[in-house]
Amino acid sequence: MKNYVRKINYYETDQMHIVHHSNYIRYFEEARLFWMEESGLAYDKVEEMQLIIPVLFVNAKYLKPARYGDIIEIKTKITKFDGLKFEYSYEIYNQETHELLVTGTSGHAFLTPDMKPVRLKRAYPELFESINKIVDECI
Amino acid sequence: MKNYVRKINYYETDQMHIVHHSNYIRYFEEARLFWMEESGLAYDKVEEMQLIIPVLFVNAKYLKPARYGDIIEIKTKITKFDGLKFEYSYEIYNQETHELLVTGTSGHAFLTPDMKPVRLKRAYPELFESINKIVDECI
Amino acid sequence: MKNYVRKINYYETDQMHIVHHSNYIRYFEEARLFWMEESGLAYDKVEEMQLIIPVLFVNAKYLKPARYGDIIEIKTKITKFDGLKFEYSYEIYNQETHELLVTGTSGHAFLTPDMKPVRLKRAYPELFESINKIVDECI
Amino acid sequence: MKNYVRKINYYETDQMHIVHHSNYIRYFEEARLFWMEESGLAYDKVEEMQLIIPVLFVNAKYLKPARYGDIIEIKTKITKFDGLKFEYSYEIYNQETHELLVTGTSGHAFLTPDMKPVRLKRAYPELFESINKIVDECI
Repeated sequence: MKNYVRKINYYETDQMHIVHHSNYIRYFEEARLFWMEESGLAYDKVEEMQLIIPVLFVNAKYLKPARYGDIIEIKTKITKFDGLKFEYSYEIYNQETHELLVTGTSGHAFLTPDMKPVRLKRAYPELFESINKIVDECI
Repeated sequence: MKNYVRKINYYETDQMHIVHHSNYIRYFEEARLFWMEESGLAYDKVEEMQLIIPVLFVNAKYLKPARYGDIIEIKTKITKFDGLKFEYSYEIYNQETHELLVTGTSGHAFLTPDMKPVRLKRAYPELFESINKIVDECI
Repeated sequence: MKNYVRKINYYETDQMHIVHHSNYIRYFEEARLFWMEESGLAYDKVEEMQLIIPVLFVNAKYLKPARYGDIIEIKTKITKFDGLKFEYSYEIYNQETHELLVTGTSGHAFLTPDMKPVRLKRAYPELFESINKIVDECI
Repeated sequence: MKNYVRKINYYETDQMHIVHHSNYIRYFEEARLFWMEESGLAYDKVEEMQLIIPVLFVNAKYLKPARYGDIIEIKTKITKFDGLKFEYSYEIYNQETHELLVTGTSGHAFLTPDMKPVRLKRAYPELFESINKIVDECI
């Protein structure tokens, strides 16, 4: 799977002269949605199926700061999938120096628009199979 | 009408050590929605009426920067209303020093969810009258 | 210690019609800086001492969504302090319904501007004592 | 000059299901800094010269909304430069449909870190000449 690459924007810095820590949570999301799209699971198609995928938890560990103009590269992996919930892990690197800047994980579930959990295997067997296949390649 | 008051958050600064200029556009919105609510036109009620109020234009002039921890006070006025479109003006002050920091204007329209303009006078005469009354007091 | 209270802004929602999950990380920061100020440790004074307090980690668990217009109330506690590092815990409630929406923790260190750890007890004994006192009341 | 291209992120939408209008002001900045870098005036080099370039004003006209997943393309031009102040204009297009979504302008000045205007011609003749050359090609 390709890594997600992007540049740090000026407005993502704060007066500590580094990227504000909340923005990495957004970069996780960018990387996750890029990853889904690369896997053939574009999020807008999931929303067309009347499914939403809220975030259940997120963890981030900040090792070194990214700064304005840096190019970061994010490795994303799906680490768990049980048909109801799934988890991702992330590693954010400085693309030039190869330093590991931030690591993290996030948890998600497939829900109906009225926030009820969806058991994918029964409700969307094709989607279930395609995710399962991706996870197998991934783990 | 009461002014809208709020404190500058740390994450709203950038590496120039001042509030990032895009955030004042968000403060305009905060002040505008506060103003609507104070006028008895809470935005969630407008959305319940199946109306949306997109922004048609926004202008901002940056005179002096606000910084982390500053308390700002925003004067909001509705300056035009013709039943289809309306305009607001804003003045953002530093509450402690009374210095004028930012001025701006924004334009809006009432639209249906499929983005068609709504002539309020015919479609929502009560809403039309209540805005008209507010505007009269305002101008 | 007083809880931190604030209203959800329109621009903090996303197309899932709920607050984007990254914003709660910002609310944690707002609550933490409010808490520090209430404790007599305003962050701008800490920065005047040439100290910076980066975030080492952050964890958040999303239980229920907040929506535009909701008023949230954040309980903040300092849960660890060893003179080098310290940790906070957060609980975000819907003020009206008293439902618990989000819980979280964050870790921090006092660093010099060139990112070296500061042993507060030796370098800033007064600051060390005042934090220690707050922690004692807290735990 | 190459146009600046980027994809809309999920967290940039709001509950109106479109990009929040404040984000286009950030896209203007992204395009402007991209433009500067393409012109050989990378912003970090300007900051190394101890110059800051605050925003004096910004105007935006919203014609059509961008949505999550859209790819936008931004045409940027420098439209004025008198050695003290300069202005940019922007056009944001949907890359796929070629529709014009947003237009805007912004004004800037070169300042010293203590916010005093810098007359570039005298203080930084080389920078002055290189901007002048770019502007000539541009207008």
